[in-house]
Amino acid sequence: MVERVVVVGADAAGMSAAHQALRVARAHGRVLEVVVVERYTHTSYSACGIPYWMAGDVDSADRLVARTADQHRALGVDLRLLTSAVALELDARTVTVQGPGGGTEQLGFDQLVLATGARPRTPAWALAGDGGWVPGVRAVKTLDDGAAWVAAVTGRSAPGGRRPERAVVVGGGYIGIETAEAFVRRGLETTLVTRREVMSTLDPDMGARVRQGMTAGGVRVVCSEEVDGLDLRRDGTVAAVRSAGDAFPADVVALGLGVEPATGLAAGAGLPLGAFGGLLPDDRQRVADGVWAAGDCCESVERLQGLRVYVPLGTHANKQGRVAGENLAGGEARFGGVLGTAVTQFVAGGVHLEVGRTGPTTEQATAGGGEVVALVTESTTASGYMPQAAPIAVKVLARPDGRLVGVQIVGGPGSAKRIDTAAAAMWFHAGVADLAGMDLSYAPPFSPVWDPVQIACRRLADRLADRPG
Amino acid sequence: MVERVVVVGADAAGMSAAHQALRVARAHGRVLEVVVVERYTHTSYSACGIPYWMAGDVDSADRLVARTADQHRALGVDLRLLTSAVALELDARTVTVQGPGGGTEQLGFDQLVLATGARPRTPAWALAGDGGWVPGVRAVKTLDDGAAWVAAVTGRSAPGGRRPERAVVVGGGYIGIETAEAFVRRGLETTLVTRREVMSTLDPDMGARVRQGMTAGGVRVVCSEEVDGLDLRRDGTVAAVRSAGDAFPADVVALGLGVEPATGLAAGAGLPLGAFGGLLPDDRQRVADGVWAAGDCCESVERLQGLRVYVPLGTHANKQGRVAGENLAGGEARFGGVLGTAVTQFVAGGVHLEVGRTGPTTEQATAGGGEVVALVTESTTASGYMPQAAPIAVKVLARPDGRLVGVQIVGGPGSAKRIDTAAAAMWFHAGVADLAGMDLSYAPPFSPVWDPVQIACRRLADRLADRPG
Repeated sequence: MVERVVVVGADAAGMSAAHQALRVARAHGRVLEVVVVERYTHTSYSACGIPYWMAGDVDSADRLVARTADQHRALGVDLRLLTSAVALELDARTVTVQGPGGGTEQLGFDQLVLATGARPRTPAWALAGDGGWVPGVRAVKTLDDGAAWVAAVTGRSAPGGRRPERAVVVGGGYIGIETAEAFVRRGLETTLVTRREVMSTLDPDMGARVRQGMTAGGVRVVCSEEVDGLDLRRDGTVAAVRSAGDAFPADVVALGLGVEPATGLAAGAGLPLGAFGGLLPDDRQRVADGVWAAGDCCESVERLQGLRVYVPLGTHANKQGRVAGENLAGGEARFGGVLGTAVTQFVAGGVHLEVGRTGPTTEQATAGGGEVVALVTESTTASGYMPQAAPIAVKVLARPDGRLVGVQIVGGPGSAKRIDTAAAAMWFHAGVADLAGMDLSYAPPFSPVWDPVQIACRRLADRLADRPG
Repeated sequence: MVERVVVVGADAAGMSAAHQALRVARAHGRVLEVVVVERYTHTSYSACGIPYWMAGDVDSADRLVARTADQHRALGVDLRLLTSAVALELDARTVTVQGPGGGTEQLGFDQLVLATGARPRTPAWALAGDGGWVPGVRAVKTLDDGAAWVAAVTGRSAPGGRRPERAVVVGGGYIGIETAEAFVRRGLETTLVTRREVMSTLDPDMGARVRQGMTAGGVRVVCSEEVDGLDLRRDGTVAAVRSAGDAFPADVVALGLGVEPATGLAAGAGLPLGAFGGLLPDDRQRVADGVWAAGDCCESVERLQGLRVYVPLGTHANKQGRVAGENLAGGEARFGGVLGTAVTQFVAGGVHLEVGRTGPTTEQATAGGGEVVALVTESTTASGYMPQAAPIAVKVLARPDGRLVGVQIVGGPGSAKRIDTAAAAMWFHAGVADLAGMDLSYAPPFSPVWDPVQIACRRLADRLADRPG
């Protein structure tokens, strides 16, 4: 009998699982039936690309779709769009799905993959009486969001084609920064309001560098303000964003408040959830007998300390999906954990600022009582005498014994991707002296003779050895 | 009594040793007298920057000097310029030096650092009867070479200020490519002649990609030709470069044939040399009792297989110098070996091509009989839908058990520095599956969701597991 695999969710995690399962089964001479149900109409799309679609770098939603439904089907996946999984019975091995016509069906499964993703955190003030968005307010998460934003910033969705003039971004994380960039590039007067410093995934001193860059690029950045409501116009559209003490006039308001795991289906079936509300797979991505989970609906394990964390990124979704697919098909794969590596940029208003980070912040790394020593090094992205040399600041965090805890980078063109060097070293539990000694590349257009990441590690190693630099 | 350290050579290795020795001694409460003798007038200069000085990116030799003589002296180094070390007596613990006035002096030492560097490989045909360069012909190594080249390409050194029209570069390595770039950017009709494929530090298929890029950028690239002589004009200046079957007209000829260790002083003192003619320090950079060596005069140990190699690069010179300085001052440091990580670029004639490489080539890795499996992946430097996405080809070499042997990258802007990710992983003896699983950064302007280096490793891991991609 052919074994049936049901995958819930057709984005990165789900489709990676589906294809890897088929691939591994084929290699083992096994036949799997793989059914994927997807609530929306699109598959495998790049949510991260939406700000660039808004900015005009990308000309249509189609370009953000890595693989279309037809391409998935051609590879052997039974893909059912506009189909929601509404109930899960683990004992009966069935998932109840509701198709586009509204009728429900019970799908039996031998193995199940939960790849239900995440939903944007949405404060009550952003929603109208009917449960939909207040007109002019929206998250930046789905392709529908993207389409609405493109229509808004180009004036296509406003009466008379009037383009909005003032934008407020609520939230200072990746999506907040990238959306602010898009608004500035579209010529909007842009304010970003955030509860703490910009980029709370950086230490505050490094976040301040990002804020300064964004300010120089034309964004009004307001920190330490909690948005608690909106002022509306008579027609119900947004007029301003309100915090305790201020009001920020806005024709449009983008929400970049992060996401939370979409785990209703799993919770309804009694699967345990963690402190962040996510599923808790083991390193084979297994959550129960014959049940696997991957992507933004899962918490992950932080590689160096083994703590549970919630890092909803496409990189992990793809890898976890592959691991789940491999294992359910009889292979043996393990997810190696997350460091929290991420990059972003703000390129607008004559500013080109790149950000990279990996590992916990100082606050996170000391929360459990551990000690952290840290140092910021200022250097250049290329040899100082080259015209392309731009400033780069590298902050290195280490334990007193020299073990690397994290690295944070803020700088000009060519800065961000250097974080991968640190991440690769940290993957193998490197110390600052290890990184300082590594054979990294050098040529004048690319780096000083010691790469900035290496300079920072060398200086911290010297300091730990009690040697003045 | 104050211990005296004599350092021979005031470039990267020698000055790193001198300063680290002072720093470590100070931390230990010891006092050292550090004397550095240098044959020429300049210290700590960037030879790698000379092609960019030639191209016009850098406006003077001063900019290529990382630290001036005065700066070194202010840090406590007794620096003696225009002073050659002409003899070394290990038993007597003396080095005989000849100063600017021509007189000699015997300097006693307690510890000695040999940092005598390398000299450009110079075929007999490049030299005139008086032992100097044939006019129009020159290497690209010293600041004097740089000054001569800048004068030549700007026409300042020719009668009537006539600028040369046709340039030939002999040699297809880093200096050859970068010098060809400088000539094209200066408007010269440029031919590059090389014995093998361009970039013999890459596998030939990857070297061919570099050649194609250079050709598209306006360089006539002639491979598999050995230059064996020159045609001269009546005034003795170069008219053409000759190989067995061809002649390549040239007003100027740049030599990029690599360098060889300058070890006359050490050999005269009976210190052993290796197969490449270099000194053979241990991993503390010690070559004899109280005698240390660092930089281009040394062979190095390849980290993964432990073979002796000769990789004369500033990155290693700096690190080895530091290690020597640390150890001679009573510290304890070890040089971790080399992988052979290097980057370069060819940016001219509308082409922007970047190259990165680490580890042995297939030819080198199989020379001892070992087996290598390899795979080339073509991807993009950013998400495919982004305007900045450029092609990138990544070749991964591994042993049949998956251990990484080397990585080679040829691609557009943003390609080269990705080699550091591979180098960092290889530093810790990673396998292709390790690298495929690592937490590397992603955002649309910087990378596809799987970094190209990671895609290549993942595919090779799949192939080794006998799974179609």
